[in-house]
Amino acid sequence: MHPPMVHLVGAGPGDADLLTLRAARLLQLADVIVHDRLIGDGVLELANSNARRIDVGKAAGRHALPQEEINQLLVELAAPDRVVVRLKGGDPFVFGRGGEEAIFLFRHGIQVEVVPGITAALGCAAAAGIPLTHRGLARSVRFVTGHCRGDDPLDLDWARLADPETTLVVYMGHSQIGEIAGRLIAHGLSPATPVAAISDGCGHRQRVVRTTLSLATRASDAARPGAPVLFVIGQVVDVITHGMAASPETVLDRRLFAAVVGHG
Amino acid sequence: MHPPMVHLVGAGPGDADLLTLRAARLLQLADVIVHDRLIGDGVLELANSNARRIDVGKAAGRHALPQEEINQLLVELAAPDRVVVRLKGGDPFVFGRGGEEAIFLFRHGIQVEVVPGITAALGCAAAAGIPLTHRGLARSVRFVTGHCRGDDPLDLDWARLADPETTLVVYMGHSQIGEIAGRLIAHGLSPATPVAAISDGCGHRQRVVRTTLSLATRASDAARPGAPVLFVIGQVVDVITHGMAASPETVLDRRLFAAVVGHG
Repeated sequence: MHPPMVHLVGAGPGDADLLTLRAARLLQLADVIVHDRLIGDGVLELANSNARRIDVGKAAGRHALPQEEINQLLVELAAPDRVVVRLKGGDPFVFGRGGEEAIFLFRHGIQVEVVPGITAALGCAAAAGIPLTHRGLARSVRFVTGHCRGDDPLDLDWARLADPETTLVVYMGHSQIGEIAGRLIAHGLSPATPVAAISDGCGHRQRVVRTTLSLATRASDAARPGAPVLFVIGQVVDVITHGMAASPETVLDRRLFAAVVGHG
Repeated sequence: MHPPMVHLVGAGPGDADLLTLRAARLLQLADVIVHDRLIGDGVLELANSNARRIDVGKAAGRHALPQEEINQLLVELAAPDRVVVRLKGGDPFVFGRGGEEAIFLFRHGIQVEVVPGITAALGCAAAAGIPLTHRGLARSVRFVTGHCRGDDPLDLDWARLADPETTLVVYMGHSQIGEIAGRLIAHGLSPATPVAAISDGCGHRQRVVRTTLSLATRASDAARPGAPVLFVIGQVVDVITHGMAASPETVLDRRLFAAVVGHG
């Protein structure tokens, strides 16, 4: 008999091809799958059709189920010999609150396996042709979130973020990119620093729009609310400007942000 | 006819289970596989047995084939209707020099597909039970490399790195961790900051040893030269201290670094 256990599984950025073999196998073995809203349909199609599916629908700032209830649900579902998969967008340990779920489960005597996933930064960088590190341009890469609780102001360590030798990847920064860009410039980053906005990354509708930090300050939070947009800021954005394998879902152009995040 | 193309494929941290479905499919379709030294045997076992394999053997600081020759080799191998897979440890765009290979290929008229992989930070964090971000402890995560060219001194931006609210992951820092720890303390990070050293991450021989920044200053570069060791520095290291699914290859204890990186 296997003791009660929950598998915290990273579903990657949406494209089922970017699931790991381990994740795909667990989806096949699953008795229950507890998943987020932003899981690609193709990913769920790989699951065992007899598995019970529970959508706990966490969109940014709008939790269909509060985190505490998700934690409790996982404890209730865990049982000997039952394969419980908690399927999370991206990687469970990068802005995924996987740590909170793991701690709660441990405190209730339930074992946890964590299966890493392709986090959005890696998936979008590959799809858009943007190396996150590159000799002479970026010796380091940093992931931050632009998401705040409720109406809290964006409280980031701007002086440390404004680093011309580090690629900065902003998750959930859709409604904050104008402010983020302005603050980075105020703290010394060149207004000409390239920025890429990648929406619906790695999916059929992926769009990549390139601009500069200066132009990004003018982005409003009006357009396409809810669309997942990832921002990559740094010299690496422009190091490969053409030549990526032509694919219909990848638009590499220099139109303004309007197409992706709109302008004020 | 398909035009000449090279697939830059991330092999993940070593465990074949952590390959993506896309990577596994390309290994099956491959006519030629050009791979690094640190690719797990299990990964190569998934490849089409008729594929020609070329080991370009890049160990840290010891390139069996210089990067320029790898670039040239890829150009020579690319041909219409030939599936050329350039298999790289981890993710091609995180300390993988994938950007350099892509640029060289583009300049020679060859298309490139980039398939992301589970970079060591994600793989090791999942295996060791260390969330890279966590509410109240780390709002950001940063990847740096401790590897220098030849005898160059380690020239990092210590003031920006010594950030108590950011998880710092050091790749290829095996021989430099003592200096890195000392500099971080000198720039204000608490000597009590937890540190995990993960060697042979995600493999059968994985070891996780936890210590503090203060003790890490005493690590020498004597022991186990060449062993891939990843360091995670930050409060998140200790947030989950027990309860991870018991596995024989994961040692979660507080013995000194000696077991993994030795002491001076």
